[in-house]
Amino acid sequence: MAVELQHFTKRSENYSQWYNDLVIKADLAEQSAVRGCMVIKPYGYAIWEKMQAQLDKMFKETGHQNAYFPLLIPKSFLSREAEHVEGFAKECAVVTHHRLMNDPDGKGVVVDPEARLEEELIIRPTSETIIWNTYKNWITSYRDLPILVNQWANVMRWEMRTRMFLRTAEFLWQEGHTAHATKEEAQEEAIKMLGVYKTFAEKYMAVPVVTGVKSANERFAGALETYTIEAMMQDGKALQSGTSHFLGQNFAKAFDVKFVNKQNELEYVWATSWGVSTRLMGALIMTHSDDNGLVLPPALAPIQVVIVPIYKNDEQLAAVTEKVTPVIEALRAKGISVKYDDADNRRPGFKFADYELKGVPVRLAIGARDIQNGTVEVMRRDTLEKSVEQLDGIVERISALLDDIQENIFQKALKHREEMTAKVDTYEDFKAQIEKGGFILAHWDGTPETEERIKEETKATIRCIPLDAPDEEGVDMLTGKPSHRRVIFARNY
Amino acid sequence: MAVELQHFTKRSENYSQWYNDLVIKADLAEQSAVRGCMVIKPYGYAIWEKMQAQLDKMFKETGHQNAYFPLLIPKSFLSREAEHVEGFAKECAVVTHHRLMNDPDGKGVVVDPEARLEEELIIRPTSETIIWNTYKNWITSYRDLPILVNQWANVMRWEMRTRMFLRTAEFLWQEGHTAHATKEEAQEEAIKMLGVYKTFAEKYMAVPVVTGVKSANERFAGALETYTIEAMMQDGKALQSGTSHFLGQNFAKAFDVKFVNKQNELEYVWATSWGVSTRLMGALIMTHSDDNGLVLPPALAPIQVVIVPIYKNDEQLAAVTEKVTPVIEALRAKGISVKYDDADNRRPGFKFADYELKGVPVRLAIGARDIQNGTVEVMRRDTLEKSVEQLDGIVERISALLDDIQENIFQKALKHREEMTAKVDTYEDFKAQIEKGGFILAHWDGTPETEERIKEETKATIRCIPLDAPDEEGVDMLTGKPSHRRVIFARNY
Repeated sequence: MAVELQHFTKRSENYSQWYNDLVIKADLAEQSAVRGCMVIKPYGYAIWEKMQAQLDKMFKETGHQNAYFPLLIPKSFLSREAEHVEGFAKECAVVTHHRLMNDPDGKGVVVDPEARLEEELIIRPTSETIIWNTYKNWITSYRDLPILVNQWANVMRWEMRTRMFLRTAEFLWQEGHTAHATKEEAQEEAIKMLGVYKTFAEKYMAVPVVTGVKSANERFAGALETYTIEAMMQDGKALQSGTSHFLGQNFAKAFDVKFVNKQNELEYVWATSWGVSTRLMGALIMTHSDDNGLVLPPALAPIQVVIVPIYKNDEQLAAVTEKVTPVIEALRAKGISVKYDDADNRRPGFKFADYELKGVPVRLAIGARDIQNGTVEVMRRDTLEKSVEQLDGIVERISALLDDIQENIFQKALKHREEMTAKVDTYEDFKAQIEKGGFILAHWDGTPETEERIKEETKATIRCIPLDAPDEEGVDMLTGKPSHRRVIFARNY
Repeated sequence: MAVELQHFTKRSENYSQWYNDLVIKADLAEQSAVRGCMVIKPYGYAIWEKMQAQLDKMFKETGHQNAYFPLLIPKSFLSREAEHVEGFAKECAVVTHHRLMNDPDGKGVVVDPEARLEEELIIRPTSETIIWNTYKNWITSYRDLPILVNQWANVMRWEMRTRMFLRTAEFLWQEGHTAHATKEEAQEEAIKMLGVYKTFAEKYMAVPVVTGVKSANERFAGALETYTIEAMMQDGKALQSGTSHFLGQNFAKAFDVKFVNKQNELEYVWATSWGVSTRLMGALIMTHSDDNGLVLPPALAPIQVVIVPIYKNDEQLAAVTEKVTPVIEALRAKGISVKYDDADNRRPGFKFADYELKGVPVRLAIGARDIQNGTVEVMRRDTLEKSVEQLDGIVERISALLDDIQENIFQKALKHREEMTAKVDTYEDFKAQIEKGGFILAHWDGTPETEERIKEETKATIRCIPLDAPDEEGVDMLTGKPSHRRVIFARNY
């Protein structure tokens, strides 16, 4: 597992290749032997675990509980909701048999034709159908509502073109599925969870996001309304980073889930679902990282501070170790994760490059002269700035530095987004602007046909109608039809 | 989701039915629409999450990191290790297609015959094959070793007879997969993780376990040695609760994983794997629970203390709430999870029965008279004993009571196991004793044939050869051949 530290592709050379190189070289993930499925390596998984832990905490604080539903879904369930099956049928992994047998020709094993399932089973692409089939038995009265359940799970969508973290056949995610007695309550829930996602993205990932609602074309299959958080990557492309759906009564109707309301009338249950996935890893990587490697927000970095001793012999190492041990303990007591790398099989320069590649937010280096002077060299990963600081009071300064890095990379990403966001009023300008990348705020007549035509001609899609879009009368740049607010167009991952 | 509190099956009537009733009525899990797959409900999942969190901590403390490998395994991978494929081929869910299409007859969707996979994929029954295929690229030198990786995942084994938690087609588990430079180190690792499992079972689940090694018949398919923790349920049957395998170089050979050792020679890598699953939930339920419902060890109870106010009007409720609020805060400050159930739509008697059913370790009830007297009624779930105690100092006493319950249910289970363990020397005695249930310590000649015959005639299997079995010369009760130690026989789940 030796890290190869040779130069990798620069962002300016080939952004897409830079991303792929970085995922591999920072030891985050790799392609597996199974088409479109990745292996998430320990370092990548450690970041995902930190994301999970924080999201899980936020879900529980908003009253949700975790549960687990089956991986496999009877094929007939998918057909119950017309748009849902339309959206997912074309990318389903289908289980047809439940046994292998020895190859009669003696070459390994083959599918046992006798073990054909009566009804094929689908590996869940999402779990609305199996969950609403279950909720049917949980709900009879308004007193059984709301149900606020989340599931951490793997799902599978047989995508033809895959990219690690961004689009993989199998991915890890969480899917919240809630059931409510009123339309208003379900709508509030969908918006509330969008807010949780926005807070998580901005406060923990340091990724600024626009919250908005999707156009009909981009809506989740089976939803009445899809809310989204959209982030902008360094190349100006949009990355849909999380979605929250108001499902109305579609799945309740498909699975006949009714309840007796307070007025003693039988009514269909109202639903939401919402999810974020390992795609967030892609957003995290592409928002902050640079040509030297990953840049991780301190809030999600598995190692927040690395300390590298510089020494010529065991005596010097012992002196450094003695000096830094209380610093390490004090940092840990503040809840800061610290790695003291005194391994003697790698030189300091190699370690420096490796921790830069891995995005460790703060690096301390300390040698014999520092011991004499009572100093330490501090390097911050986001700006690569080095400074020599007094050891006295270093714990408080590192703690503050971590906060500063967290804020700095957020502001940097925000500034980038603002600089890469343009208002455009004519289709000619639009076509020129879209080549530069970034978000375009433009008027749209609200029809799928216009959206479709723009997509065909420019590869840009409507990312969302921002929730905070001000009322503004205008005309569609293509059709000249009236529009009441600007929407965000962009090319996207 | 109203809990039906009517009487359910007693253990003495039908132990197996009691278990099924309890899983349903305590809201732990239910059958799903998919054959053999269960839905783990929020209360059941909350217990599993506590298990996961503790195990994960123990894995990390012993130097392991988490990662994630694909759900699907190419069929040909299974065939690489001869015993492995023999062990798992007959219960594999097989993915053969990657797309559905509209039924030409207009009835829902059907499998698209054009979307047949070139090679079928198996839903992982366990991940040795895909992981060792991956490790091949991670390992070149002894410096890359050891690899100490764990995965939390779902797996699928198409079992014909399933029971919730104990044996389900899909289950949740963790699987550790480690790679080592020497045989000794791998053997040590397998034994070390068995020790972690024993500590977890006894200290957190309060389930006493025997550690031992499996006979060849019961060994994991592909292992050189399988170590096990075996628990005894209340009906005297054994439950294999966790296994740790020394895999030798079998998977390294199957996937050609070699490394350059310190002597600069090319050698196959040594392996272990080890796992526990949602089956532990079955062990937990069946070890401690009684005819009133679940009995949970405080260390794993989602709610450790429930407080039920007894009141006739809002004024009395307010007085109780005022009195208990500082108690709740003080308990929570000690890390104790407390639920204050002041819901007004259920009567106290109903609440009491419900929390007994759910196995909440300690229940406090407090009413108007208690307020006057400065007292509170304390009920401990394990013995159902009630006492009236002074509110003064209650926090410390509850904390001590939780420890006492944890210890008491462990000792009770241990005493039960000891009482249900018998030494037997003749096959006649064996056949009589096995009908009474429990563990039987008997001599065995070490051959699979004898073991097989005993199994056929008595339904008892060798659960393990205990690691601490003293040397004792004897003769096999069936064949009269020499034996050097006693092994444990039992009927099992």
